[in-house]
Amino acid sequence: MSNTATDTIVAPATVPGTGAISIIRVSGPDCFRFADAVIQLRRGSISECDGYSIHYGEVPGLDDVLVSVFRAPHSYTGEDSVEISFHASRYIADELVRRLLAAGCRLAGPGEFTRRAFMNGKMDLAQAEAVADLIASTTAASHRVAYNQLRGGFSNELALLRSELVEMTSLLELELDFSEEEVEFADRSRLVALIDKTRAHVTSLADTFKYGNAIRNGVPVAIVGATNVGKSTLLNALVGEDRALVSDIAGTTRDTVEEVINLDGIPFRFIDTAGIRETAETVEKMGIERTFRKISEAEIVIGMLDVTEQDSTIKSNLELMVSKVDLGTQKLVVCLNKVDKASELVVNKNVNTINNFVASLDKEVIVVKLAAKAGLGLSELRATLSRLESHLIPNADSTFVTNIRHYESLRNTASSLVDARQALTSGIPADLVAEDLRRAIASLNQILGTDLIDPESLLQNIFRNHCIGK
Amino acid sequence: MSNTATDTIVAPATVPGTGAISIIRVSGPDCFRFADAVIQLRRGSISECDGYSIHYGEVPGLDDVLVSVFRAPHSYTGEDSVEISFHASRYIADELVRRLLAAGCRLAGPGEFTRRAFMNGKMDLAQAEAVADLIASTTAASHRVAYNQLRGGFSNELALLRSELVEMTSLLELELDFSEEEVEFADRSRLVALIDKTRAHVTSLADTFKYGNAIRNGVPVAIVGATNVGKSTLLNALVGEDRALVSDIAGTTRDTVEEVINLDGIPFRFIDTAGIRETAETVEKMGIERTFRKISEAEIVIGMLDVTEQDSTIKSNLELMVSKVDLGTQKLVVCLNKVDKASELVVNKNVNTINNFVASLDKEVIVVKLAAKAGLGLSELRATLSRLESHLIPNADSTFVTNIRHYESLRNTASSLVDARQALTSGIPADLVAEDLRRAIASLNQILGTDLIDPESLLQNIFRNHCIGK
Repeated sequence: MSNTATDTIVAPATVPGTGAISIIRVSGPDCFRFADAVIQLRRGSISECDGYSIHYGEVPGLDDVLVSVFRAPHSYTGEDSVEISFHASRYIADELVRRLLAAGCRLAGPGEFTRRAFMNGKMDLAQAEAVADLIASTTAASHRVAYNQLRGGFSNELALLRSELVEMTSLLELELDFSEEEVEFADRSRLVALIDKTRAHVTSLADTFKYGNAIRNGVPVAIVGATNVGKSTLLNALVGEDRALVSDIAGTTRDTVEEVINLDGIPFRFIDTAGIRETAETVEKMGIERTFRKISEAEIVIGMLDVTEQDSTIKSNLELMVSKVDLGTQKLVVCLNKVDKASELVVNKNVNTINNFVASLDKEVIVVKLAAKAGLGLSELRATLSRLESHLIPNADSTFVTNIRHYESLRNTASSLVDARQALTSGIPADLVAEDLRRAIASLNQILGTDLIDPESLLQNIFRNHCIGK
Repeated sequence: MSNTATDTIVAPATVPGTGAISIIRVSGPDCFRFADAVIQLRRGSISECDGYSIHYGEVPGLDDVLVSVFRAPHSYTGEDSVEISFHASRYIADELVRRLLAAGCRLAGPGEFTRRAFMNGKMDLAQAEAVADLIASTTAASHRVAYNQLRGGFSNELALLRSELVEMTSLLELELDFSEEEVEFADRSRLVALIDKTRAHVTSLADTFKYGNAIRNGVPVAIVGATNVGKSTLLNALVGEDRALVSDIAGTTRDTVEEVINLDGIPFRFIDTAGIRETAETVEKMGIERTFRKISEAEIVIGMLDVTEQDSTIKSNLELMVSKVDLGTQKLVVCLNKVDKASELVVNKNVNTINNFVASLDKEVIVVKLAAKAGLGLSELRATLSRLESHLIPNADSTFVTNIRHYESLRNTASSLVDARQALTSGIPADLVAEDLRRAIASLNQILGTDLIDPESLLQNIFRNHCIGK
């Protein structure tokens, strides 16, 4: 891994478009010289300026600019860098980049500034990934997790685990140096206990991925029920008051028709499904099968019932619903919809029926009265959902794994530790145990990006998802 | 006009959205104190920092930021100001603004930063308006005009005119002080000559509005011709290769279905029209009347003919077209379309027919052979259009009036000068002549924003069209 880039890169750092100001960033060994070729300061040259200082200048015939100067290693990339602030017009941005390219800069690739920051030791790989996550965050929860990771919370935890493993390994390796003397520096039973403790820690960290993933991509919520029970109406009503945020998210998340809604700082990903009911028709059965599959992927299932239906229909729909939800791991919220279309008597009777049935299940099932079209009961439903997932609001210190790459590395670490323990307890020679431990360490290193075996392919993979200019 | 704002304003200065970095701007007497309440510097406080310096800080639990400090009067607004640069996420931006509001800031209105710059004498009103124009510029020509205006080119020219008028007025007023002695400090015939010279200058400046407006909003080009002659195909072909820019402009220009295309740095605004032909039908006549009106508003008319039509049809369509264009002030480009659908013989015969007819008009009419669908002849047409308007590419010193407000003020100035001349030559007393001149000066003052009579309504009008954060 080379620590010094030889070329100087340029890219817009702010969102393109019409605003008050925009910024173009230049980083690399020749950035001052190239910026001087394009910008005339009122006095002196950029090459002579101190780090962390701002200067008024002119790009002849184009714009008046402010130049912020950063000197290595005190910059985002760790290199000499310049940020040029100008009137936010696309025309000026294009022309300024064109002139900087003509002066000798190269257009930066996606995430290349952050990649240089990693290469120059300004951050580890988990922190570099957190930069992209932080920018994409749209809720308090996802922001908190990304910010904690950027600040090194996750990295510190891994570093601690790593140092424990390194210590065990060096004890074992010390034995190997003295192998003719058959000494045992490392007490075998203490070593087993240490491995167990570390593995438990690694596993519990890996287990947070379930939550971390929900925080990052939204808690999956399936809305199910018979046709015309009001599923789409409910989804629209939930989305409606939150339309601005939803459209914001649309640009930053993957191609999906699912709607993500922010409730009390937690993102919920609502999945609209086809109506479910018992049917003999093949085509319809396929749609219903797909609905069942979506139910199984959901964390929360909103089961909708229509209070204006016959008692027997309500009951059978409820039974069908409950049969498809795994109440051991999933949460069911039963919504009795259209309560504004029935008498209080009928509503109460149905609530009783549902409550009695639910009580027989001996699992927590929440019942909410709704009139989705009229907007009644929506705030109670929202509050219920955010209460069910309130454990996802991370506090400042909590670490969540949000990245599948990290999750897989942690699983590999745990698996190598299982091997090491197995080897230890079977009396297998110390050098083989040490090899298992070294594999566990290597898996942790993958996360942080230290001592990478095949760095290029990994780095390309990671940074191509960053935006240009970051 | 008060020179010092008492409150401190905040607004995002960059386009909202997901990018590398975003900037929030704070300006006003308490900006350092409020920023200190929200941001913890690594050492010291923002209040103690020098102007034009950058500092690394932390917004607790939210983000790591860079703070750029500007001390009055050396800032955009002329006030104490702070620019906070952070990871570009909408979540962080919203939360940071929220915290700054909680600390005591007020959310800035549209253009309020620039308005403060004007109030504090950092720029005159014409320059303040140029800021919005500069940001909205999408072509080399419109950018050049706005930048020249921002740099004070236009203001300096007005200031010169104004000082000449002020001198004349003071000479006349001096006479009034000595009125009992019946002296004439100001030689009447010299004064008349001076007024004529100034009026000619003012009028020629006002006359640039025609070009300035074209530069700013696009040269209006009407595409006319019979139904199915290929008008929309041509428009799409012209727009097609330029789609990215067109969609950019869409967000910044007014509500219109017209397409603006950048050719060699000049914006052309293409106006698609209904097909024209002689008809008896009332409804169709109305559509055609509208087309004729659009033709009369165009600077350039592209008249399309279909080479596969009968000779007589082509000829009568050409005659109809020519009859509706004022060849004294408008430019006509005849496009013979679908040349790929006819033999060379037929094409040449038609070109000859057109050329002969055109020669009889004794005006410049350009004939271009096209196959719009196949893309043939498009580059020749483009080159023709940009050649016809090449006078619109301003050089560094040229002043164009682009703003209707300025245009009207200049017309008022000229009209007051006509009154003054009339009064002078009719032997009307000096004090009445001086009043005319003072009105001429007041009209110029309106443009620059000096000594405004009713500043509030004018300023509100101007700055409400600026974006928030500028």
